[in-house]
Amino acid sequence: MKCTVHASKNFVIGTADKRLFSSFVEQLGRCVYGGLYEKDHPLSDEDGLRSDVIKLVKDLDIPMVRFPGGNYVSNHRWEDSVGPIDERPVRLDLAWKALDPNTFGIKEFIDWCKKVGTEPMMALNLGTRGIDAAKDLVEYCNHPGGTALSDLRKSHGSEAPYNIKMWCLGNEMDGPWQVGHKTADEYGRLAAEVGKAIKLFDPSLELVACGSSNSDMPTFPSWEETVLEHTWEVADYLSLHMYFRNDEDDTETFLASSKKMDQFIETVVHVCDYVQAKKRSKKTMYLSFDEWNVWFHSNEQDKTEPKWNVGKHLLEDVYTFEDALVVGCLLNSLLRHCDRVKVACLAQLVNVIAPIMTEEGGPSWAQTIYWPFYYASKYGRGEVLDIRLDVPTYKNHHYGEVPYADAVLVYHAEEQELDLFVVNRSLDETMEISLDAIGFPTQLKLIEHILLHHTDLKASNDRDNPEHIKPVVMDITREPYKAPRQSWNLFRFSIS
Amino acid sequence: MKCTVHASKNFVIGTADKRLFSSFVEQLGRCVYGGLYEKDHPLSDEDGLRSDVIKLVKDLDIPMVRFPGGNYVSNHRWEDSVGPIDERPVRLDLAWKALDPNTFGIKEFIDWCKKVGTEPMMALNLGTRGIDAAKDLVEYCNHPGGTALSDLRKSHGSEAPYNIKMWCLGNEMDGPWQVGHKTADEYGRLAAEVGKAIKLFDPSLELVACGSSNSDMPTFPSWEETVLEHTWEVADYLSLHMYFRNDEDDTETFLASSKKMDQFIETVVHVCDYVQAKKRSKKTMYLSFDEWNVWFHSNEQDKTEPKWNVGKHLLEDVYTFEDALVVGCLLNSLLRHCDRVKVACLAQLVNVIAPIMTEEGGPSWAQTIYWPFYYASKYGRGEVLDIRLDVPTYKNHHYGEVPYADAVLVYHAEEQELDLFVVNRSLDETMEISLDAIGFPTQLKLIEHILLHHTDLKASNDRDNPEHIKPVVMDITREPYKAPRQSWNLFRFSIS
Amino acid sequence: MKCTVHASKNFVIGTADKRLFSSFVEQLGRCVYGGLYEKDHPLSDEDGLRSDVIKLVKDLDIPMVRFPGGNYVSNHRWEDSVGPIDERPVRLDLAWKALDPNTFGIKEFIDWCKKVGTEPMMALNLGTRGIDAAKDLVEYCNHPGGTALSDLRKSHGSEAPYNIKMWCLGNEMDGPWQVGHKTADEYGRLAAEVGKAIKLFDPSLELVACGSSNSDMPTFPSWEETVLEHTWEVADYLSLHMYFRNDEDDTETFLASSKKMDQFIETVVHVCDYVQAKKRSKKTMYLSFDEWNVWFHSNEQDKTEPKWNVGKHLLEDVYTFEDALVVGCLLNSLLRHCDRVKVACLAQLVNVIAPIMTEEGGPSWAQTIYWPFYYASKYGRGEVLDIRLDVPTYKNHHYGEVPYADAVLVYHAEEQELDLFVVNRSLDETMEISLDAIGFPTQLKLIEHILLHHTDLKASNDRDNPEHIKPVVMDITREPYKAPRQSWNLFRFSIS
Repeated sequence: MKCTVHASKNFVIGTADKRLFSSFVEQLGRCVYGGLYEKDHPLSDEDGLRSDVIKLVKDLDIPMVRFPGGNYVSNHRWEDSVGPIDERPVRLDLAWKALDPNTFGIKEFIDWCKKVGTEPMMALNLGTRGIDAAKDLVEYCNHPGGTALSDLRKSHGSEAPYNIKMWCLGNEMDGPWQVGHKTADEYGRLAAEVGKAIKLFDPSLELVACGSSNSDMPTFPSWEETVLEHTWEVADYLSLHMYFRNDEDDTETFLASSKKMDQFIETVVHVCDYVQAKKRSKKTMYLSFDEWNVWFHSNEQDKTEPKWNVGKHLLEDVYTFEDALVVGCLLNSLLRHCDRVKVACLAQLVNVIAPIMTEEGGPSWAQTIYWPFYYASKYGRGEVLDIRLDVPTYKNHHYGEVPYADAVLVYHAEEQELDLFVVNRSLDETMEISLDAIGFPTQLKLIEHILLHHTDLKASNDRDNPEHIKPVVMDITREPYKAPRQSWNLFRFSIS
Repeated sequence: MKCTVHASKNFVIGTADKRLFSSFVEQLGRCVYGGLYEKDHPLSDEDGLRSDVIKLVKDLDIPMVRFPGGNYVSNHRWEDSVGPIDERPVRLDLAWKALDPNTFGIKEFIDWCKKVGTEPMMALNLGTRGIDAAKDLVEYCNHPGGTALSDLRKSHGSEAPYNIKMWCLGNEMDGPWQVGHKTADEYGRLAAEVGKAIKLFDPSLELVACGSSNSDMPTFPSWEETVLEHTWEVADYLSLHMYFRNDEDDTETFLASSKKMDQFIETVVHVCDYVQAKKRSKKTMYLSFDEWNVWFHSNEQDKTEPKWNVGKHLLEDVYTFEDALVVGCLLNSLLRHCDRVKVACLAQLVNVIAPIMTEEGGPSWAQTIYWPFYYASKYGRGEVLDIRLDVPTYKNHHYGEVPYADAVLVYHAEEQELDLFVVNRSLDETMEISLDAIGFPTQLKLIEHILLHHTDLKASNDRDNPEHIKPVVMDITREPYKAPRQSWNLFRFSIS
Repeated sequence: MKCTVHASKNFVIGTADKRLFSSFVEQLGRCVYGGLYEKDHPLSDEDGLRSDVIKLVKDLDIPMVRFPGGNYVSNHRWEDSVGPIDERPVRLDLAWKALDPNTFGIKEFIDWCKKVGTEPMMALNLGTRGIDAAKDLVEYCNHPGGTALSDLRKSHGSEAPYNIKMWCLGNEMDGPWQVGHKTADEYGRLAAEVGKAIKLFDPSLELVACGSSNSDMPTFPSWEETVLEHTWEVADYLSLHMYFRNDEDDTETFLASSKKMDQFIETVVHVCDYVQAKKRSKKTMYLSFDEWNVWFHSNEQDKTEPKWNVGKHLLEDVYTFEDALVVGCLLNSLLRHCDRVKVACLAQLVNVIAPIMTEEGGPSWAQTIYWPFYYASKYGRGEVLDIRLDVPTYKNHHYGEVPYADAVLVYHAEEQELDLFVVNRSLDETMEISLDAIGFPTQLKLIEHILLHHTDLKASNDRDNPEHIKPVVMDITREPYKAPRQSWNLFRFSIS
């Protein structure tokens, strides 16, 4: 089939914020312990950080990493995770029914961030704690010195402040599973007062208020409206979380997941703008999609994990080629909403529903979903153009009319380059791509075609075949504009 | 007059839970200090526990004891009551305006429980504290080890966890007198979140949500409805409290007190089932009547007690024979609602509105109310049959038609025994009892008649006459089926 | 023009409570550090207290001083301000973006109070804290001994309890600027429960519930109604705050400020009495006007002060002669509402919108507003008579008809003296005063006329001309009953 992409240089959605390619490290399962941190691993450095994991993370060029939760944060005391490691208390994490040794705390995370070249985004516990604990943590991290808390940080070995710029006002506080879950009014009031205290400390800090845990929550989207009514003055971003599943092994529906993400984002934008109108405000509320991914493979196995251990095997989804196609579509969705979505965190980074897997004492490798994320991070940071697709559709019982192509077009002015990301959702037909881009001075010239494709939708990478699913650079002299059936593609065009 | 008790082997209310014969030890007056604990008493053991009190408690065979309050708990920090005794802080107890030395804390209570052969039931402070303090206490008590809090318990001399199975989510939170009193919504929300955290720790723990402090509270029974709406998922029991008084010296009204208890229980059952229907739930909410007794004698004297002392003479009701008859009726009420009331705590155990009295440095003795409780605890643990009484009634200005007999019939299948508890409320006439029990294979044979009777309703026991009021075993060869005027009776029948 | 003051011995508003002449010391700017406390000042005593400031304060005969805030209190932990000074933590005060060394804490304030002969009035943090912190502080301060907290105070060098009688249940909790700001319902519930705990400790303590921060708050006066509904049982006073400004340099409007204060007080009285009627209560709710003054001169300068310093130059209004006239009128307003206003605090005492200014290492002096306060404090403590004025009015765009005179008449029975305070608001005309006081046995005889007057409304005192604006005693043999244009006057009459 054919797919024509219509674009114009003057129709721009926005400039993609590099923070769209952020990720998330929760104190959960083997994300930290046995993931990015493994004391006795032969590849670990003097701080116990796995250098092979650092390499894989650095390759993804992740600008920001959310920490330390997730549900974890809602029953965590930050004081437990600072100071001399052997004096830190061992706690029970009620969220994941795990033992929390607090060995890898705030300083360790900050040090790791520096090593991988990323910025921290810190979540505050608004489940069991309030204003005092939150402002104390912010002061501990960010105040230069001369106060009890900032001097405490210095005594813990961090002379310079951490200068953490983004702070999450709690996590998924709409979820009944959350320790210290709140109603929209309860949360909105608490977040407003915590946020106010933090802005009194430093008005330049950016705060994320909790939106809904997903669009199927019974309180969505009235939660958003109520929370924004309370927090409008202090919140800079509203969060969105969404995970996608293919329980019924229905590929056509699963591949259309980006339509659900599109709709979720757009509904939340509408709520934001409704509250803005009610507030007679000039402020635009931006979105932080700070948890998103495919997540369902590990659900059954997780029920069998014993309680109260460190580094449990939890949420260890082994991703298929099919999942990678979905992740590609979801990245497209984030890019085409870059006017409002400024932050997005692939959840999570290592082992726990993650692009990177490790074996204890063994190797690490990239899962299938690593690759669309890798290329989006590398070529997505430009001006996203507002495209129209001329492509056939299929009827889906869940999503209605679904175009066979999910595409996004990114313009890099400096490089004079146009990058077209296309997922061909068809399970049968090759797609001939043509790009009709108006307003550029010269003819476009295809300079590279990167393809992620496999005949087996359920194929995946593992320790023994870590590169089973991996992108290939196509020979563009032969079939330059063809996206094979069930494939993720990046077409790079030179303008000059 | 005549009283015929109709019963049928097939009409069973339910099996009486042994926990119906539980009691309550509050940090109040001389219940602990000078009651069950008296360091320098000649009969005290190496832990300062009075062995004479232990003997009286063991005779009652109490399956569970609630601790440490009561109103006391709502301004108590559990951390104050653990660790080396001489390092524990002296606090003011605002509830009872007493000095709280924290000498007798959690470990001491657990040790005492073991000595008397009972289980602890612990109340959490939801007055001034929240989720963190509650889950910390549960972890301190029940987690085997390997965490800061469980290892703290070990370092305090308790290697094994306490395994406390029942926890009260606060105490009488509907009462404006309560430190940190809450509205029904405030309490319901807090109890739901605290309960959730505890169930995340251990879903097998049983939680009691606070119902009304008595049925005369202006918020009764809407309090129950609102609280259950919030806590339905986490609460296993809803509490009831009720105390009975005879201020106007009106014996006929006072003896009918069990009608008030019946009505209270039944109304609360109806609210529970209403919320169950609203929730479309399959769960049955059970009741914990965790404070009940006669209480009024000491009210005036209590106003004269000086503030901020340890072991104040508070709530030291000296019980009359009349009170014992009322307690007998109330035990009957609890037994005939054993399908829903699974726990009941006679409040309290020693000195404070208690069946057991002590003198500092002197003896201890059983009050009048000790005896109906003793026999109910001993012979009440069977199948309670649904009986109908054929007996005259009297008109009472408060309760309307009151039957002269208050009776309950308990079937012990293993022992092939039927035990009939009867209070004759008539102040003038002897009652001839006949038992018409259908469905049993053989004829019933009276094997024992235990009688509690005195001609003076106001007679009581004291240090010098500790056995003035005491049950007697009747000569059943003479008048086998007669309950004298104003008397409590137990008729034991053999079936085989 | 002429002004006749009609009065009758039998028409009495009430006896002015001496606490109407209270003041306020907040941990703000140079009120404490560099104000009443300056370690290295040549005039400071061994405790670092400036003796020249003490002298000026003692002259004002201030009965009570509110402490330690103000907005400051809502993010302060009292524990930080007790114990060995060199162990106290340095904190950030979010309210004033200042560094808080906690050097001058509770003990230091109490010691200072003793030196100047005043009583403390303490504010509790209901912004970030709750029941436990509040009752702990009260116990720490007021309990004689034998508990952990009272013994802690003793170990800190204060053997005797502080016996602080008045406590503010938070500060300006209706203000969105407040750390831990609350809705009326949130605040009312918290204040009710904190107040109850304190009254359980000592029912003789007097509690002030927060009213509105000023009458222009959007929640005024429904805030008052809601708060009183919740706190009626525990509150003895409701607070009022109000500051007056002359941004548009409109003297006629500015001089009428007392009309705004009158109306504010009267509206709050009506709300109190409305709630009293709803509650069917016999209790009269009294008012505590615990922040009032002129405040606007320093607003622009304050925006330039750097953050996170100790003793910042904040709120350092230099008061003009015009301001003194307004303060005179405001004092009159407080006196003529002495039946309900029992406490009033001139905000604040030193440097910060204050009657007393100091220079670091240099002198201290009285600002213009010092003087009307000085004389009101000295001659205002009597029976305030209900007067009627016969005086011309002027039309004001803001206040409508404004009498040229603002007067109040105070009867001192013991001294047989009548003291007439009169502000002549006319900028042009002298006012001839005549006093028509019925019911006194003898003729009135003028014994003194004290005048505060200057031709330049904008004249002020400063370090070099500390007595530029100062009252003078007039020669009453010449023009005994004349109040010059734009002047504050005290006419003292002898009755005997």
